[in-house]
Amino acid sequence: MFKDKDFLLVDYTEKVKESGEIIDTTLEEEAKKAGIYSEDKSYGPVLVILGQGDVVKGLEEALYNAEVGNEKTVEIAPEKAYGNRDNTKIKIVSLSELKRQGINPYPNMVLRLNDGGLATVKSVSGGRVILDLNHPLAGKVIVYTFKVEKVLDTQEDKVKALLGRWFKKVGDKISIDMLSEKKVKLTMPKELLLLENVQLLKYLAAKDIVKYVYPEGSVVFEEEFDSSLLK
Amino acid sequence: MFKDKDFLLVDYTEKVKESGEIIDTTLEEEAKKAGIYSEDKSYGPVLVILGQGDVVKGLEEALYNAEVGNEKTVEIAPEKAYGNRDNTKIKIVSLSELKRQGINPYPNMVLRLNDGGLATVKSVSGGRVILDLNHPLAGKVIVYTFKVEKVLDTQEDKVKALLGRWFKKVGDKISIDMLSEKKVKLTMPKELLLLENVQLLKYLAAKDIVKYVYPEGSVVFEEEFDSSLLK
Repeated sequence: MFKDKDFLLVDYTEKVKESGEIIDTTLEEEAKKAGIYSEDKSYGPVLVILGQGDVVKGLEEALYNAEVGNEKTVEIAPEKAYGNRDNTKIKIVSLSELKRQGINPYPNMVLRLNDGGLATVKSVSGGRVILDLNHPLAGKVIVYTFKVEKVLDTQEDKVKALLGRWFKKVGDKISIDMLSEKKVKLTMPKELLLLENVQLLKYLAAKDIVKYVYPEGSVVFEEEFDSSLLK
Repeated sequence: MFKDKDFLLVDYTEKVKESGEIIDTTLEEEAKKAGIYSEDKSYGPVLVILGQGDVVKGLEEALYNAEVGNEKTVEIAPEKAYGNRDNTKIKIVSLSELKRQGINPYPNMVLRLNDGGLATVKSVSGGRVILDLNHPLAGKVIVYTFKVEKVLDTQEDKVKALLGRWFKKVGDKISIDMLSEKKVKLTMPKELLLLENVQLLKYLAAKDIVKYVYPEGSVVFEEEFDSSLLK
């Protein structure tokens, strides 16, 4: 039995019950078998902080009751996964309007709308295009096979996991010194100092670290610029 | 007699000899009298590092031979100020072409060209526009009245001046600790931590500090994010 704000490292494979199609997986082997392997993605267990909506509600509920090392499979109804289908989210637009936007729609194409949402093309005929604004997985029962690989207990392990969340693989190169119960010092590696968005990533990582690991505490970053960086 | 890489704090007023027009000044009173005062500018002596091209060549030469506290006036010929006029830099363009670019030219208007350079409109007639691509001050004799207010000798004063160059007024709030002859630690104030371009400013300041104050040394930045920043 886990509780809010516990840090779990979780492996999972997610599929659509009806079709058996694998949507996502943290396991490299599974991704390759399912033909969805991507070189840009880093595989391996992901950090889930309970109660934060890091994963869909149904999986989160199952995780509260999970045990380390036991693989489980759960079926999740649409309302605790990607939502039920809403038939009022069907929209008819004119083909010429989409063509003016440079879009040549065909059935099952997924479009990005001007408001940022996604829509699936259901049909194109007679100059009319029927769009479905529901989430592509709305209405589907989702099956998760998952295993809690590890629970992170120490402040240091939690900080490390949060750095991985924000800095991806380079997060490992940030060195961590616990200065006190309330303060952690992070020494940044040289390769991160010249990244354009590093200040934003530091802000986001610090925010999570203070929220989950050092309430009322603080995060000190140390960065050393020397002549090797300063051409 | 000063030498290369000396750090001088200099007040100056710059005018065109011919017209007497004041182009620039570090003195607030002078700026107000001349009608060129700007609230966005911070007045007071500016940092000039000798031999780095921080000011026009003629003024730089005069500064090498200046003495602290003595006001001097020098006349500088165009070739050591903003260059001689080059009559091949006169260009004729069509009025309709400029209008297509949304520009409605009139004599003495200064335009920014597509290549980023500046041009002055000399005349507009018969559908033809004559542009002068010379620097607006090219060919002018420039008169500088200047005074070296101070020479910075200590590493700490030099670091402080360079921080002012890059961080403007907030530079004063960065605290400076000399860790050794080769290393300085700069503690950043909270108000700088969330600036979008702060990482670039740190890089540029560190580059100057290593170049002029700690050759072969390094600059360590320390930044503390606490809950007051992390809403």
